[in-house]
Amino acid sequence: MVLPGYTYGDPGLPPSPVSLEALHQLKAALLWSEEDEKALKEAGEVLKDQVEEVLDLWYSFVGSHPHLLHYFTDGQGNPIPEYLERVRKRFGQWVLDTCFRPHDEAWLAYQHEIGLRHHRTKKNQTDGVASVPHIPLRYLIAFIYPITATIRPFLAKKGHPPEAVERMHQAWFKAVVLQVALWSYPYAKEGDF
Amino acid sequence: MVLPGYTYGDPGLPPSPVSLEALHQLKAALLWSEEDEKALKEAGEVLKDQVEEVLDLWYSFVGSHPHLLHYFTDGQGNPIPEYLERVRKRFGQWVLDTCFRPHDEAWLAYQHEIGLRHHRTKKNQTDGVASVPHIPLRYLIAFIYPITATIRPFLAKKGHPPEAVERMHQAWFKAVVLQVALWSYPYAKEGDF
Repeated sequence: MVLPGYTYGDPGLPPSPVSLEALHQLKAALLWSEEDEKALKEAGEVLKDQVEEVLDLWYSFVGSHPHLLHYFTDGQGNPIPEYLERVRKRFGQWVLDTCFRPHDEAWLAYQHEIGLRHHRTKKNQTDGVASVPHIPLRYLIAFIYPITATIRPFLAKKGHPPEAVERMHQAWFKAVVLQVALWSYPYAKEGDF
Repeated sequence: MVLPGYTYGDPGLPPSPVSLEALHQLKAALLWSEEDEKALKEAGEVLKDQVEEVLDLWYSFVGSHPHLLHYFTDGQGNPIPEYLERVRKRFGQWVLDTCFRPHDEAWLAYQHEIGLRHHRTKKNQTDGVASVPHIPLRYLIAFIYPITATIRPFLAKKGHPPEAVERMHQAWFKAVVLQVALWSYPYAKEGDF
């Protein structure tokens, strides 16, 4: 496997508990349109050769906050380098998937998997590490801000007119909120999602 | 009481289960700074005489989507006008509170109360209505997008330079994400928040 732990489209991946109809309704709540799909693909073209720089920025942000880096540590204050590295590679792929993947059953299934990997259900399992057991829901939601705000300068780096940058950025913002909403599934009490 | 059901600062309101220290850490995760506090107050000055127009827009958005209006109905497709109206008044106050209230224990306690009022724990109780029992977590999170994106034109309406509008808008975005993160508390399984 080229990308360790990356199981997108794996036939063994369980289906999402969220239906395509529920996804469609959720997207209506965030004003999703076909324009966003196009703008995300455009964003993907802009971002694809900048992924390492984006990850450098995100990792330096997390690394500079001990209470965030905590979720990559052994719980005794020691970051686990191979865990950081494996997650980083998948995080880079996530940027591309966010831009290029169609929102179908395979996409929904992998969104659910990502949620489980943040939640105590499956955290650490994919990478076989002994890190802290769970990333709190409040941080999953809070990260909508940095992951959205920090991408904008990268979207603006290829000389697109301001309206195009804005369109790409709004689509990215929606795509991040949508995914965090889906990732919250394993955190919610029965029936609360 | 001037504003029915508005219990901000009420000494009878239980304290939030979230500590000021946890709040501080959460704000660090969304890159909160003192600049944001200032920018939010500026935003409040800009928005305070536009609150009804903002609410018109938000209500027309919800009203035009039956699956969202649903949470203001009796569950048989009939919206409950007095419920819509009472929530609307508090929603207007919420815009101002978001901009002007300091992030202290009273603020935290009311954030927790807002979460409970969306969750099945307390939905409908404040207004004594027989509406559907619960607003799903996924919609709480999804609403970060429309509530953030649609405010920008209102922030730009008073002739501020683009940098000031941007600063106010980023602070608003952070403030909305922060609150939704706090509102998720009653939805999360024990220990998952």
